[in-house]
Amino acid sequence: MQHTQAMLSSHPQPAAVDPQALAHCVQACFDCAQACTSCADACLAEENVTQLIRCIRLNLDCADVCDVTGRLTSRQTAVDTVVLRRQLEACVAACQVCGAECELHAQHMEHCRVCADACRNCEEACNALLTTLSA
Amino acid sequence: MQHTQAMLSSHPQPAAVDPQALAHCVQACFDCAQACTSCADACLAEENVTQLIRCIRLNLDCADVCDVTGRLTSRQTAVDTVVLRRQLEACVAACQVCGAECELHAQHMEHCRVCADACRNCEEACNALLTTLSA
Amino acid sequence: MQHTQAMLSSHPQPAAVDPQALAHCVQACFDCAQACTSCADACLAEENVTQLIRCIRLNLDCADVCDVTGRLTSRQTAVDTVVLRRQLEACVAACQVCGAECELHAQHMEHCRVCADACRNCEEACNALLTTLSA
Amino acid sequence: MQHTQAMLSSHPQPAAVDPQALAHCVQACFDCAQACTSCADACLAEENVTQLIRCIRLNLDCADVCDVTGRLTSRQTAVDTVVLRRQLEACVAACQVCGAECELHAQHMEHCRVCADACRNCEEACNALLTTLSA
Repeated sequence: MQHTQAMLSSHPQPAAVDPQALAHCVQACFDCAQACTSCADACLAEENVTQLIRCIRLNLDCADVCDVTGRLTSRQTAVDTVVLRRQLEACVAACQVCGAECELHAQHMEHCRVCADACRNCEEACNALLTTLSA
Repeated sequence: MQHTQAMLSSHPQPAAVDPQALAHCVQACFDCAQACTSCADACLAEENVTQLIRCIRLNLDCADVCDVTGRLTSRQTAVDTVVLRRQLEACVAACQVCGAECELHAQHMEHCRVCADACRNCEEACNALLTTLSA
Repeated sequence: MQHTQAMLSSHPQPAAVDPQALAHCVQACFDCAQACTSCADACLAEENVTQLIRCIRLNLDCADVCDVTGRLTSRQTAVDTVVLRRQLEACVAACQVCGAECELHAQHMEHCRVCADACRNCEEACNALLTTLSA
Repeated sequence: MQHTQAMLSSHPQPAAVDPQALAHCVQACFDCAQACTSCADACLAEENVTQLIRCIRLNLDCADVCDVTGRLTSRQTAVDTVVLRRQLEACVAACQVCGAECELHAQHMEHCRVCADACRNCEEACNALLTTLSA
């Protein structure tokens, strides 16, 4: 995400939310969307795929939810904080549940270990942005 | 959405949520995602585009949020009701705010009038599904 | 997609492409995106999931490609026909390959049979729109 | 995209495509999807928005196309090279057209200058991956 910081800071209007927390959140969302897309795909190629059905489903959901949260947080024009807050809360829930499931398989599958870390990172970034919205 | 009902009812496992409410919600989400994508685009082509900035932004958000909610509700394997509920709540918020903004322009712009109706329809379908989840 | 026709026809500028072919394509894309999302999810819940790995992967791709093609075709402002054509060609390829794979399982799994039909329908609608672009 | 490299390399099967070119492409796609989402939003907040209508529309398309290309390239299970190639070609077209439009505004708007760079970077990464597929 080499261009994200420069994109966010070149917006013509003053930021409605904390710029640092915003940039972290945008980057964490896209990073987690990619990680969950990869993890669903890697699980699908594992020999014990039948034990990973719930993990794949949660990965697909988390990828979709993080992706859309990354889009919403990327937009700084006419911010509606209610919509932003609800989507961030949905993203926190998706990352928590998906991260916890990946954690269960982390010892045996490297992709689940890495993905759990991406989920935790995104959950924290969303929560940090939520805190600045409440202030 | 001519194949949606048949797709949802051919899932190998018994439905975790009310099938009727689910089918309505899936269809309303994709319908609203399309309507909001069209409305943002139509607003962009209006002569008074400068008065429609907030409408365009909310349309883009609502299109994204409805799209991902349509994906999550389409999935019936290993449903996590917390994630589903949070995403439905985010979708209700997006549809409420976007629908209210479109309503403001409904008298002068047919696309905003139609889009406001799609938002209301989606908000109701999400709320109806949320009610069955709480039961 | 009860609002799609009204949304497309309320655009303030004259259509750059054939309105009938456009409306069919938009609706077929979102319908197929939903069908493929459902089919990937239903395959994941099947006992013989290990024989459906390729089907799931192609369903995920086709859902994503149809979704974005539905978004692009929904936009009538400042149409760039090169981008539109390339994305429609990608959608035709995704629908062909996914539909052919689903067809292989159609006799034993109703969701694959229905999904193959949604893919064929979308492939035809994209090809029909491509034909009008070449004219 | 701090987890992307680790996710791609932890896939249980040997890579079907060049791992270096793949990782570059995945990262460039998500980076460009974010940049174009930001650029559409920043253009919308500019005083001369009426001169940026085509830029906004192309940004929205390019964001959507890059996002889905990033998803497809993230998947290494049961790769279908025809679908992958067509989607990469669509992404090259979207990045070329959007980057050229942003370039026109680069002197006066920093977000268009940065976004043009993200588009060029993504176009190159997609072309580099296409070259390895042809080999």
